[in-house]
Amino acid sequence: MKVSIIGATGYTGEELLRILSHHPEVEIAYITSESSTGTAINSIYPHLTSSYNKKLASMKDMAQIATDSDVVFIALPHGHAMEAGKQLVEQGVKVIDLGADYRFRDTAVYEQWYKVKHTHTEAKAVYGLTELYRDEVKQATIIGNPGCFTTASILALAPLAKNNLIETSSIIVDAKSGVSGAGRSLSLNSHFTEMYENLKAYNIAGHRHTPEIEQALSELSGQEMVISFTPHLIPMARGILSTCYASLKAGIKPEDIDQAYNDMYGQEYFIRLLGRGGYPATKHTRGSNFCDIGWHIDSRTNRVVVVSAIDNLVKGAAGQAVQNLNVMFGLDERMGLTQVPLFP
Amino acid sequence: MKVSIIGATGYTGEELLRILSHHPEVEIAYITSESSTGTAINSIYPHLTSSYNKKLASMKDMAQIATDSDVVFIALPHGHAMEAGKQLVEQGVKVIDLGADYRFRDTAVYEQWYKVKHTHTEAKAVYGLTELYRDEVKQATIIGNPGCFTTASILALAPLAKNNLIETSSIIVDAKSGVSGAGRSLSLNSHFTEMYENLKAYNIAGHRHTPEIEQALSELSGQEMVISFTPHLIPMARGILSTCYASLKAGIKPEDIDQAYNDMYGQEYFIRLLGRGGYPATKHTRGSNFCDIGWHIDSRTNRVVVVSAIDNLVKGAAGQAVQNLNVMFGLDERMGLTQVPLFP
Amino acid sequence: MKVSIIGATGYTGEELLRILSHHPEVEIAYITSESSTGTAINSIYPHLTSSYNKKLASMKDMAQIATDSDVVFIALPHGHAMEAGKQLVEQGVKVIDLGADYRFRDTAVYEQWYKVKHTHTEAKAVYGLTELYRDEVKQATIIGNPGCFTTASILALAPLAKNNLIETSSIIVDAKSGVSGAGRSLSLNSHFTEMYENLKAYNIAGHRHTPEIEQALSELSGQEMVISFTPHLIPMARGILSTCYASLKAGIKPEDIDQAYNDMYGQEYFIRLLGRGGYPATKHTRGSNFCDIGWHIDSRTNRVVVVSAIDNLVKGAAGQAVQNLNVMFGLDERMGLTQVPLFP
Amino acid sequence: MKVSIIGATGYTGEELLRILSHHPEVEIAYITSESSTGTAINSIYPHLTSSYNKKLASMKDMAQIATDSDVVFIALPHGHAMEAGKQLVEQGVKVIDLGADYRFRDTAVYEQWYKVKHTHTEAKAVYGLTELYRDEVKQATIIGNPGCFTTASILALAPLAKNNLIETSSIIVDAKSGVSGAGRSLSLNSHFTEMYENLKAYNIAGHRHTPEIEQALSELSGQEMVISFTPHLIPMARGILSTCYASLKAGIKPEDIDQAYNDMYGQEYFIRLLGRGGYPATKHTRGSNFCDIGWHIDSRTNRVVVVSAIDNLVKGAAGQAVQNLNVMFGLDERMGLTQVPLFP
Repeated sequence: MKVSIIGATGYTGEELLRILSHHPEVEIAYITSESSTGTAINSIYPHLTSSYNKKLASMKDMAQIATDSDVVFIALPHGHAMEAGKQLVEQGVKVIDLGADYRFRDTAVYEQWYKVKHTHTEAKAVYGLTELYRDEVKQATIIGNPGCFTTASILALAPLAKNNLIETSSIIVDAKSGVSGAGRSLSLNSHFTEMYENLKAYNIAGHRHTPEIEQALSELSGQEMVISFTPHLIPMARGILSTCYASLKAGIKPEDIDQAYNDMYGQEYFIRLLGRGGYPATKHTRGSNFCDIGWHIDSRTNRVVVVSAIDNLVKGAAGQAVQNLNVMFGLDERMGLTQVPLFP
Repeated sequence: MKVSIIGATGYTGEELLRILSHHPEVEIAYITSESSTGTAINSIYPHLTSSYNKKLASMKDMAQIATDSDVVFIALPHGHAMEAGKQLVEQGVKVIDLGADYRFRDTAVYEQWYKVKHTHTEAKAVYGLTELYRDEVKQATIIGNPGCFTTASILALAPLAKNNLIETSSIIVDAKSGVSGAGRSLSLNSHFTEMYENLKAYNIAGHRHTPEIEQALSELSGQEMVISFTPHLIPMARGILSTCYASLKAGIKPEDIDQAYNDMYGQEYFIRLLGRGGYPATKHTRGSNFCDIGWHIDSRTNRVVVVSAIDNLVKGAAGQAVQNLNVMFGLDERMGLTQVPLFP
Repeated sequence: MKVSIIGATGYTGEELLRILSHHPEVEIAYITSESSTGTAINSIYPHLTSSYNKKLASMKDMAQIATDSDVVFIALPHGHAMEAGKQLVEQGVKVIDLGADYRFRDTAVYEQWYKVKHTHTEAKAVYGLTELYRDEVKQATIIGNPGCFTTASILALAPLAKNNLIETSSIIVDAKSGVSGAGRSLSLNSHFTEMYENLKAYNIAGHRHTPEIEQALSELSGQEMVISFTPHLIPMARGILSTCYASLKAGIKPEDIDQAYNDMYGQEYFIRLLGRGGYPATKHTRGSNFCDIGWHIDSRTNRVVVVSAIDNLVKGAAGQAVQNLNVMFGLDERMGLTQVPLFP
Repeated sequence: MKVSIIGATGYTGEELLRILSHHPEVEIAYITSESSTGTAINSIYPHLTSSYNKKLASMKDMAQIATDSDVVFIALPHGHAMEAGKQLVEQGVKVIDLGADYRFRDTAVYEQWYKVKHTHTEAKAVYGLTELYRDEVKQATIIGNPGCFTTASILALAPLAKNNLIETSSIIVDAKSGVSGAGRSLSLNSHFTEMYENLKAYNIAGHRHTPEIEQALSELSGQEMVISFTPHLIPMARGILSTCYASLKAGIKPEDIDQAYNDMYGQEYFIRLLGRGGYPATKHTRGSNFCDIGWHIDSRTNRVVVVSAIDNLVKGAAGQAVQNLNVMFGLDERMGLTQVPLFP
């Protein structure tokens, strides 16, 4: 299978390369960067030396890229994937977009939160949260790969939403991310000296992963779900922990919760259930595509508290994209993704 | 003023010494440690060299300590302060206990959560959250100095509770702490290699700071408040960030919230209001007694989200203890506590 | 190939499991721990869940382990491998010891530095720095796998020593290691709160990796080499950087240095030469078996400065052990070791 | 005393403000920034709120600043202090420059290493390493405040150089710095995600602190000293550790070394001697003006290894500048500088 990556010099692009190097069915056709065209990828990311020394191409000749690729990953900032996506799909190439452009069933929601006009509304994009939309992913020609916070949060809450175990309006998601989630662009918020031994919240009540979580939970429950979502920046590079709160519906027992998780995820390779009382830790998932989930009943307040942990660059981005690739092409879903987490 | 510290070799004791070195009215009488009696404190904490080279005494001769001290800080594990506290109070010495033994009006609550019998129930202890209980602290002979999570969380929520702006049963506190909060005792959870680039929750629905927060909020509001509280361990040494969620009562407007904070804290030196939309960061308070607070209205869910930041070892422990000392002895409340935070 | 690990619950044992999970020719026979016999390995290391749930055995029945294994890794504290090693070798099993017991040609040197009597002096152990002793490793029945500091330091200096480009007595090695090098045993030096934002040297002029480096350099040069070695503890979990200084012999030109590195390592997969002027960074090797090397000529002082970087748990321990396994059994040396470093 | 700071928005400027807030004799006249003129300093550095809310002025009206100031700190990039320095000195204002412009007796050395023409060669600048040049500092009108690496390294080696205990050409300085040393300007090397759990050397054989160290050591010994200097970047914010190697002259005994340190520094408040065998740790100096020094004899190689630790922003910059201010104005040298280090 010939694979190209549009926008290969961000952390997501580089992580795709890392993961695909372990994928037996994949051959890299093109990797592109407009600012570094002609440069070898390993002069930008020296750790890739011995694995990749390929030169970066330009995405300008997309027709050629399409001709030479079976599937293309797009790792561009939101708003920039639609044009490429449209052209690629029209040439019959499958597309997995790691940005936000293809994540929303209702492009009006996208336009409202991202302040960008959607120019590829006819795309029959599938939301690529693999465990929840596997059947659709199988048939998809274009995938909107989920955001990092959303992957952790939706997977944590899905069994509760699907089985209507919680009050619709009671959901609060308090999420924490390592700084790599902010990307490789320089900013004071990602400046080492400022963020070391530091901790803060940001974008309260306005983060763009909010409607993505709401879309998935609403579909699962069949009811409109509106949530409170607060992201935090943690002084570490990789990892997301999502702590999710919801009020239990009347009469719901702890065992009902347990069963919901076991029924939904018992057979899922990439979801490791730590059970009731379990405490996920981000480092147990580092470098892997696993999502670890534990849940707790707060009987004093009649709430359920669910905690999930992922590596934001893997299950929260490049890893899930490869998982979707496998499903789209009928391969073993775990292909290229069986690396043991890097601990400690 | 002659001051002694019982249990001076933990982080709280050491931090008291650091702060008191800047206090013009204080002279250290005794510092004690049962395991290191006879050792100079700076051979345990070399950073104190040039400031302190005092030898550690034993607390066994408490009568002598009482005779030679005007006030005694107790920094022992919970359950161990009551005996010392009783004896000191009986000898007419003022006491500030940094553990949990004197934090509860109802010692039955203490006994229930801490699984220890209270042996000094006749103590007229005052809860030393200075900004809220200043008048009581002035008259106090014995202070139960608040916990670190509780200080950050109560200060964040107090204006809302006091003014009955939020639904009683809607409060969720998602708190994050640096690892110093776990103390100097060795454990795998505080092992560098395990916690570096790691992040996790612990003691969900069972952390002992929960009833302390509930006690204060209930008193402020005049209604029983039961909350959900989740602590997290963050890979940094110092700092607590508390993210607090509550549903607004019908008809409450953003300006009502603003006014509640300004009315309650506008004149408080140690509380720095970042206003509506403000984002506290723990590092802005590092090494200082400040508590920074910002609040946000989530109009889609009708919730208020309040974020507060403190240094867990200062405003969350030793700093607030010195603040209480100042209030008890009629000194300027800021004495010894005006150091600028250490940033970056 | 049936492989067992004696002492599997330390970081080295756990890392062996991580790496061997990617090795197509290996099947794990036994993993042992005396303190956790009967416990599943993934309850001690939850990140291994889904990869390993094997129960830990006791090493007491070594005869059975020997019967059921083709090769045994020993990851015990120094002084404890000799008895096991002797028994295993006598039963015809190949042994790779990750401790110090089999690293010295002259066991008197071992006894002098480690203060332990050597009880298996007849062992024909081979020093397993693969790139330098590959031919011996091929024939070996028992391997003394090198230490972490030593691997980085010897690989950095070997081309200079072998080609007699530097003054014998001028070598200084200033090495820096992440805290995982100190293992999983609890100590104040590995306590998160103490080591965070902290940095120090230790064991100056007395670290046990010193004679190991001297042994290899002396053999390469044919002259006795005595070096100064200083290890430092760095506030991170993984990674070693070794900065090595030596005075150039009269008449040695920069190109001579370049050629020595290229001749010795030009064909080595796991050694990535960054060339003259290159700057290795530990994170570019994280999780991989690579050793990155760059060198610099200080013409003002006529010194060469060589910098090498490795992951201390991989090329500095478990990875090199697997590399030796491959060489011993005639497999492709890279088998199981081709993972791309985990960056960022 | 009226004090102004030219270039107050870098870490050095901000740190001067922190320290001066504890100085009883100082009043801040002007703080300047060309890019943020008119902005309140605490909107750039929120941690300064409650201590400073002063607006930043422009340095364009230097004549007015000179009129209203007794002393001016200059915290500009090198090459930019000379013009300001000249004007201020001519108006009779004392100047302490925290950059490199006034550090060299021989401005030709400055021009060679910094590639900038010196335009204020007539300045009778004094090198402000206070402990070594105190008498000159007392009389100075303009101070070249030492660099961070240089302060740690010169203080470590001075007793050896002054007493001619070591071989002139044998000195190697291997120095390690936290990332704050690279300043607040954004760069990939200071990007959190890149430097977290990472470690590397840079500017080998070419760092500009090299000639500064050589100048001081040569003056102390009366002989020209040429050294090898290697800086490293460590994943922490504050702190420098300097590990210095030198060969002992024939016949020098360990007690000679001890005596040299005790004679030179025994009465110095800011230098804490840990003695022979002592191990400084950067965190024991964090936030303070202390320099901790320990030394070791490597009898196998006849070398002395000296380790020194400082806070790069305090003794390595702003703290030493205030120390010089005190000396210049005949104040107690410790004024404003007695804060206990912030540990842990």
